[in-house]
Order: sequence, then C-alpha cells, then structure tokens
Amino acid sequence: MAARSPVPTAGDWLGSKGPGYPLVLSSRARLARNLEGLPFPGASDEEELERARGMVLESVSRGVAEERDWEILFAEELRRDELGIMAEEHLTGPSFCEEPAAKAMALGPGKAAGVLVNDEDHVRIRVMMPGAQFMKAWSEADTIDNRLEREVRYSFDHQLGYLTACPSNVGTGLRLSAMMHLPALVVTGDIGKTIAALGQAGMYVRGLYGEGSGVAGNLFQVSNRRTLGRSEEEIVTEMDTVVAQVAGNEKTARKVLTRGPGLDLADRVYRALGILERARKLGFNECLELLSMVRLGVELEVLTLRDFNLLEVGAAVAPYHLGEALGVEAAGEDVDRERAVEVRRWLDL
Amino acid sequence: MAARSPVPTAGDWLGSKGPGYPLVLSSRARLARNLEGLPFPGASDEEELERARGMVLESVSRGVAEERDWEILFAEELRRDELGIMAEEHLTGPSFCEEPAAKAMALGPGKAAGVLVNDEDHVRIRVMMPGAQFMKAWSEADTIDNRLEREVRYSFDHQLGYLTACPSNVGTGLRLSAMMHLPALVVTGDIGKTIAALGQAGMYVRGLYGEGSGVAGNLFQVSNRRTLGRSEEEIVTEMDTVVAQVAGNEKTARKVLTRGPGLDLADRVYRALGILERARKLGFNECLELLSMVRLGVELEVLTLRDFNLLEVGAAVAPYHLGEALGVEAAGEDVDRERAVEVRRWLDL
Repeated sequence: MAARSPVPTAGDWLGSKGPGYPLVLSSRARLARNLEGLPFPGASDEEELERARGMVLESVSRGVAEERDWEILFAEELRRDELGIMAEEHLTGPSFCEEPAAKAMALGPGKAAGVLVNDEDHVRIRVMMPGAQFMKAWSEADTIDNRLEREVRYSFDHQLGYLTACPSNVGTGLRLSAMMHLPALVVTGDIGKTIAALGQAGMYVRGLYGEGSGVAGNLFQVSNRRTLGRSEEEIVTEMDTVVAQVAGNEKTARKVLTRGPGLDLADRVYRALGILERARKLGFNECLELLSMVRLGVELEVLTLRDFNLLEVGAAVAPYHLGEALGVEAAGEDVDRERAVEVRRWLDL
Repeated sequence: MAARSPVPTAGDWLGSKGPGYPLVLSSRARLARNLEGLPFPGASDEEELERARGMVLESVSRGVAEERDWEILFAEELRRDELGIMAEEHLTGPSFCEEPAAKAMALGPGKAAGVLVNDEDHVRIRVMMPGAQFMKAWSEADTIDNRLEREVRYSFDHQLGYLTACPSNVGTGLRLSAMMHLPALVVTGDIGKTIAALGQAGMYVRGLYGEGSGVAGNLFQVSNRRTLGRSEEEIVTEMDTVVAQVAGNEKTARKVLTRGPGLDLADRVYRALGILERARKLGFNECLELLSMVRLGVELEVLTLRDFNLLEVGAAVAPYHLGEALGVEAAGEDVDRERAVEVRRWLDL
C-alpha cells in the first residue's frame, strides 16, 4: 500500500468512453455498510471514530489491497484544495470535504474503486466506470465488499439487510448512479417531463456532484432510490432499463432539434464556440453550459472539434483544479481568467 | 439633373471620418420651410401637394442643381425596399417611407445634401457631414436655402420667422443633430445622467433614426430643441458646446473603464467579437450592440481589427439593405443569417 501522494491526478475512468457514451458518461456503484458493535459515525465519539477507521483501513489493507496498489488518504491531513479536487473528480461528496475529522479514503488504482471511512456510514464502497456499466460496477463493489466482510463484522439485520445511518440506504445499501448528458432535453424543454417520470419511477435526479448539488452543463445524475426489499440484480436491471429510457428521450429530442429549424441549433452551438474561443473570463457553470452546447454540436455533426470528454474537461476547469494550478485561493477573477485559457487548451481553440 | 437611379448607394459622408470621430460620427443640419400661399402639406389636398412639389422641384432644378449633378426621386415611384434603404442611410425619416404620396427628394452628389418635398413641411433642406461640423453643415444648408428663396416665396412672419407645420420648428427652422457613439457611458451606467442633463439644457436625445426611433448600438442622436428667438449662429455654438461636453463625458467614462478591472472590459469586448465571428444569425439591434462593443475595444486598444465605421456598417447590415442584396422580403431568418455573413465580411472576420 502506497504512502499518501500530495494531489491525486484524475481517475482513468473520468476521461474514458464506455457503453452508452456520449449520453451516459459514467456509472457509479455505492455500497453502504457499518461495523457491528459501534455506533454510526454521526453518533460516535472521537475514540469510536478512530477505532472504526483503524478497523476499516486494516481490513482494506489485508483483504483488498494486498495484491494491488491502493493508497490511503487521511482526510484531516489533506489540504482544503486537495479535498476540493477529490470532490471535483467525483471521488467524495461534500461532507468528506467539509468535515474531514476522522474520515479516510482508500483509493484503488486508477481511482475507479474506493472505500470511504467514517463518512455518513463507517464504510462506503464506491466503484466508478465509464459509460453505462451498472452490473460491472456493482460486481466490483460486491467483490470488495466480500473481501472486507472476511475481516470485519457488518451491522446486519436478517429481516432488513444491512443497517445504515440513513434509512434510505437500509437493505442492500446499494445505490447505482449514471451521469447523463442531456442537452437536447434541456433545449427542447422536455427535461421537466423526463425528471417527473423518473421521480414517479422511484429514481433520484441530481446535479453534477450528486445530492444537494445544482445541475450544470446539462449533466444529470440519475440513481435508484429504493435499496430495501429487492435484490442487487433487480436494482441493476432497473438502472439498465431506466437509463436506456432516458437516453431514448434524449435521442428523440436530438432528432427534434435536427429536424426543426436547423439554424437555431447551429446558431446556439456556434455562439457557444465563439464565447469559448474569445471570453477573457468564464464562470464554472457558464463554462460547463458552453461545453455542453459545443459537445451537442459535435455529436449532431453541426461542427467538428477536437474530441473531448465533458466530464474530464469539467473536472479540469473546476475551481479547485484551477486554483491548484495557479497556487491561489480557488475563487475570484484569477480562476475565471485561467478557466478561459484552460478550456481553450483542452479544446485546441 | 440625372434621371432616377434604381437604388442609391450609400452617401460618402456615411463612411467618412470628420472632427470628433469616433465619438461624433456625423452632423446634420435641417431647415424647415413652407411655400407662401399654400396650406402646409398635412392640410393640403392632392392638387395642392402636386403644385407644391412642382414648384419646389423646379426651384431646385433652376436654383441649386444647375451646376451640379442632383437626382430627383419621386417617393411614390420608389419600391418599399428602396424607401427603406434611404431611411436606413439616414436620408429620410419614417414618414417619407410610410406615406410616400406626393413626396419627393432631390439628392445632391454624394448624398450629403438633399431637399425633401411635402414631408411635414413643403421644403426640408438636409445636409449631412462626417464628424462634428455644425457650422459647415448649416452654411451649406443656408446656401441651398438662399438659392431656393430666389425662386420661391417662403411663408415668413417678421416677428416669428419661418412658419412651419409643427410649432417646434418655427423661427429659424434649423435643427442641428449629432450622431454620437457613447458605449462607455452606457456600460458604466452614466448615460442616464448625461441624457437628463441634455434634456435640461434644451436638447433632444433620440435613437439611431431620429424622432421616434429606439437607441441601438449605443448610438444617440443629440439635437437642439429651440429654433425660435435665437440666431442660427447661436444654435451652432450651442451644438458645438453641448456635443463637446457629451464627448467629454464619454471620454471620462472610457477612462473609468480602462482604469477599473481591465478584465471586465476585455471580456465584454472579446465576447462580442466571438459572437460576431461565430453566430449563424444576428438580429439588427444585437448586431449593432456587438459592433459597438467591438469598436469600443478597438478605440481603447483592447483589440486590433480592420478599421470600420459603425454608421456605415450599421447601414450595410440594416434590414432593407440585406433584403435588397438577397432579393427577398426584408425580414425573417434569411436576413438574420445574411447579416451574420455580411458583418464578418465588413470586419474581415
């Protein structure tokens, strides 16, 4: 197991293309688990948190990492901008960044797999994959889960399943998510119908950084809500079905856009390109919106451009990434100016 | 005197630079006169209008045009788009275009001088000059006026001066106007104060096409309101003073912009450039706004660009000009698309 590296570079999965690309940019499987005999992290004192962290990291070290190169990051040892960078790369949620005390992360090679310790639950296993690969992501998370379970005893109820801090995760503790790029549904205004239908189908629809984050760049995180009373395989099947439906809606909206007055679409796409080429400063959300429109243009063959992955460029121009590159506070006009330069570098403009 | 040419090309003054350029793009002197013994055009019947037109055109022909190449345009013989083109080149106002019956225009070489017949008054002498040249514009109008007065008798009152259809023109009948480009006053928000001060000083502030037209491209027409009880020389002096003051305000605002956070200005200017370079369609007003920002950028040395005159390009991308080039109705998406192409041609983008 490697020593903590200063700032991790982005995971391989972030810039890769998988099944369903470019409508489905990435998949995530997340399993929530807690240690038997210890209160949930939110109810634990300092000593209990330290004990939990020690137990989980030791079991990762023995059960998971022995054959592979994992690295361990103690949250309180990371600088604020290092924590921010991890969140911008979708490795952690905001709580890991904002209250780092007694938290840790074990990160697998390529950052595809990770184990978060003492976040909302003692153990959160997280596996990322490019494109729509829910079965594969879940299988890998399941493998890690099984190896950990050889080392520690989880809090488990034979009626309910795995017990978790938040009742919404009780049961399988499995949440599958897809990061989807849905610009045509936004442009045509049909996104509202799709989101309403997803809500009725028992799915969450969230923004770029998951729970509590806003939508930016027409990127939507779609995930299952129900984790209780159904098998993991059923959840995988549900995700496959729902994500295919949403992708179908987006494809229909794209046909509407290309069949409609073509000038409207081309004008929007080219104006976005013009601003990306020429702006002297760009806010993060605006930059993502422009990138989203330009990608839509590329995908609908309205313009040609150097190939780029929206999620990868999105991380590279996020505030902490740029702040890190500049060596300044990750805010303000310097970052906005650097973003305008950086995005042109990525797009070869 | 030449026969009516189909569509006149733009006047030389429109694309030229005069004193006070680029803040003062053009000057106009206008004298309002009416024929003695005939009712004002608005109160005339068809036969009286025809008589007035015949008398005025004959006097132009004998008194003004004998040595020079003037052309006579009968408004009702012009197509709608030809009338529109003349209005877009600031040769006529909207009433000439909308109610052409019995109206006419005698147009001097280079379109700098003209005599409008049967518009609001029987005779409106109009002289255009590039930059701020109020004395010169008035002198030339005065010369034409004197020559016409050798041929016809004007309606004149020894107490009031020249009598006109609208009381606001009684007296000298002289209205001087400056077309000013004031983008920095708009960007800083100080334009409101300047307009209020102009109102208090007895000046009109109008839009791109004078009375009743909206402001577009940060272009403002400043003109004297009072024509009665003062000499023409006093009106010229007033215009010189007022226009210099407004230009001073604009210069101050430009200093504020360049001393302030430079990135804000550069960002606005370059975004305008990016949209001009890339948009697939442009509305007329939006196009003027973008041109105005790009000109401001050129004048403040934020960017370099092929030199262009805002008023000249503004006329070239106006609806009737583009419609004429396309041979279609001067409206709709075709014109907006052509405008995006045409503006890039003018700017060498």
